Amino acid sequence: MKILLNNVAVVPVTGPDSLIEKGYLVIEGNLIKELGGGMPPDDAYDKVIDGTDKAVLPGLINTHTHAAMTLLRGYADDLPLMEWLETKIWPLEAKLTSEDIYWGTMLAVVEMIKSGTTTFADMYFSMEQVARAVKESGMRGVLARGMIGVGPDSEKAIIESEELVARWHKAANERILCMLGPHAPYTCPPGYLQQVAKIAGDLQVGIHIHVSETRKEFEDFINQYGKTPVEYLEDVGILQCGTLAAHCVHLSDRDIEILKKHNVGVAHNPESNMKLASGVAPVPDMLEAGLRVALGTDGASSNNDLDMIQEMRTCALLHKVSKMDPTVLPAYQVLEMATANGAKVLGLEGKIGQLAPEFKADMILINLKGAHMTPCHDILANIVYSAKAGDVDTVIIDGNIVMEDRKVKTIDEEEILSRSGIIAKNLVKRVGM
Amino acid sequence: MKILLNNVAVVPVTGPDSLIEKGYLVIEGNLIKELGGGMPPDDAYDKVIDGTDKAVLPGLINTHTHAAMTLLRGYADDLPLMEWLETKIWPLEAKLTSEDIYWGTMLAVVEMIKSGTTTFADMYFSMEQVARAVKESGMRGVLARGMIGVGPDSEKAIIESEELVARWHKAANERILCMLGPHAPYTCPPGYLQQVAKIAGDLQVGIHIHVSETRKEFEDFINQYGKTPVEYLEDVGILQCGTLAAHCVHLSDRDIEILKKHNVGVAHNPESNMKLASGVAPVPDMLEAGLRVALGTDGASSNNDLDMIQEMRTCALLHKVSKMDPTVLPAYQVLEMATANGAKVLGLEGKIGQLAPEFKADMILINLKGAHMTPCHDILANIVYSAKAGDVDTVIIDGNIVMEDRKVKTIDEEEILSRSGIIAKNLVKRVGM
Repeated sequence: MKILLNNVAVVPVTGPDSLIEKGYLVIEGNLIKELGGGMPPDDAYDKVIDGTDKAVLPGLINTHTHAAMTLLRGYADDLPLMEWLETKIWPLEAKLTSEDIYWGTMLAVVEMIKSGTTTFADMYFSMEQVARAVKESGMRGVLARGMIGVGPDSEKAIIESEELVARWHKAANERILCMLGPHAPYTCPPGYLQQVAKIAGDLQVGIHIHVSETRKEFEDFINQYGKTPVEYLEDVGILQCGTLAAHCVHLSDRDIEILKKHNVGVAHNPESNMKLASGVAPVPDMLEAGLRVALGTDGASSNNDLDMIQEMRTCALLHKVSKMDPTVLPAYQVLEMATANGAKVLGLEGKIGQLAPEFKADMILINLKGAHMTPCHDILANIVYSAKAGDVDTVIIDGNIVMEDRKVKTIDEEEILSRSGIIAKNLVKRVGM
Repeated sequence: MKILLNNVAVVPVTGPDSLIEKGYLVIEGNLIKELGGGMPPDDAYDKVIDGTDKAVLPGLINTHTHAAMTLLRGYADDLPLMEWLETKIWPLEAKLTSEDIYWGTMLAVVEMIKSGTTTFADMYFSMEQVARAVKESGMRGVLARGMIGVGPDSEKAIIESEELVARWHKAANERILCMLGPHAPYTCPPGYLQQVAKIAGDLQVGIHIHVSETRKEFEDFINQYGKTPVEYLEDVGILQCGTLAAHCVHLSDRDIEILKKHNVGVAHNPESNMKLASGVAPVPDMLEAGLRVALGTDGASSNNDLDMIQEMRTCALLHKVSKMDPTVLPAYQVLEMATANGAKVLGLEGKIGQLAPEFKADMILINLKGAHMTPCHDILANIVYSAKAGDVDTVIIDGNIVMEDRKVKTIDEEEILSRSGIIAKNLVKRVGM
């Protein structure tokens, strides 16, 4: 299959000045063949997509979420963190069947596709259902079975993680990758983390872990171990595994050095951190230190959506006001976090996150024509500061057109919304709350 | 004209528990006649709108913007404030013709209607063009001619303000109200502000003014006058005029008492304050003190849109993280800021901002069905935390259907987008930048 995108603004995210105001992009099979300004090569194309008044950019990469938790969207808001978890989220999660997780993930996948996300890094349980959803939908996913070392399922989680890797790592034309998902330093004892690090090395997969999300976590570690969570993780050897650290809200200067030393990827989740009042991660400082910082939404129960376009905008605005400096995190840098940096932290650098020859054909077309996108003095600024999820017109993943004219083509959107809506209602009834 | 909205979730914003999960609302002429749960009264209706899977809520009220600046959207981002103003915004504004302002305002009006705003408070110049846009579009507007006391046009601004009030106050079936718009304490000397306060009293109109937007403004006043900007404004008598104070980012505890004493309305603009790195206004403290705090977007050149749904969400998230308390500004309170409180600060309490009999029929229908709105455990949470501008389906202002099924019915959207886009491009060419 050879696809031509023509008359389109190309945003390759290969440098601040890489924008091509009017150009073309050619896809062959699952790869980008070429792109440029002006007229496309004269060739026989199986499909030509007219990109007039549209921009093509790399598909957005959501580096930290819990897709199935979309079933819990809006279920419990505006509560203190522990009350939220203990009285609302955990009791409901305990009732989730693997079928629920399949439909919850499918709901998340529809929302992600419709808002321009082409790859997501997920940590949850019943991950074979998540893999199934990724395979069927045509999405790209980096999947980790969450492992609670202090819980009754700690050994089961290890076995299921190994099974997940054996069965799904590099499956679906390599659209699925697997990682190990030790939940967090405060839920995994040192011995458990060492065991996980060893398995990650043996299986040659990365680690996805929550790190220093709350001030309480940070202070508890200081009090209990005389170390920060990051120091603790370094000491047990979990940062040395091609590690993706979600949140990293509360960090010492030394923590940033440690993360840099081990080239840890950071998944920054500004909206979840704001909504749960976890704090403001020191993103400008981390970027300044040369850390690879990408973006994530976290689960829809603390966001309350999976909209990476909005996440970019919030990220830029939050750090400007937090640093009291409007020049912090300009539009291009934030776009890079949501694309090229996402690829880097997921071990997919050179494969996705940018538009360039030989990269996988993961991209989205954004409509530039709405009232809220007019005028168009600056395409990048309009994409980051004014675009809405609903402006995503077409989504291509691994060379496959997954959405066109806002119609999802790979899966049945209506059935998914209907079934997941019913499942969510019944779940609340089952918990009796 | 008698309109029935049927089978609809009604969000009256008359109290935290005022939601009617399934009900109806009857409009007669430009007023709400009745609303309730269950079946509507058996009557002959000119039009019946099926509200299945939709919620009806008061139209959103944008209490501080500069509509015509939408022409400058995305023109100059990520710059330090003074460089942004002096090298980018002011040179461009100096070139704006009244025709430009008409089309820029029309563009803003289209965006506002399409994102659910039914009333906006505007401060700019060539305000007769803004009045014209409000009249033609069917919007509701509270208009103030910006007055720079230190500028060459200080007297002209007073004359034009008086003319605006004489010609347009309570015009278009009272859809247009006027206020006086002394720009800010730092641009208006005491004598000028006293003159403006006197005129406001004589004409019986309110005052719309920028107050303490930046730390620099606050510190400059302390250094120059030994007073805060709020104390300065109280001393010259400008807070005693039914005053709407935009921003109020930097306030002392005493400032909050002063604002409360004079029952000053506050227009909080979280996204603009974030993007320009002005700071975080003490909104929870102001609400705690009993101040009326409403929401605004500010101009699209510092936002970069006029989307009040997104503004609600950002407002809630910003103050949760700023106070490190997730219970701050729950969904209902933020919705109130964007509706009922908006009416209060614009002197329209009891007329708009809530759904109740005898209120003006200003309301919007929001689609509850998208993937990002599924499941629906809590309608209010979904509206504030998950809804997008594109979910606004129908807009009714003063009993008139201004948008239906996302088609704007009163004005020509396509022509406005096309003309304003060209004007914006030419403007940049005229400035030669």
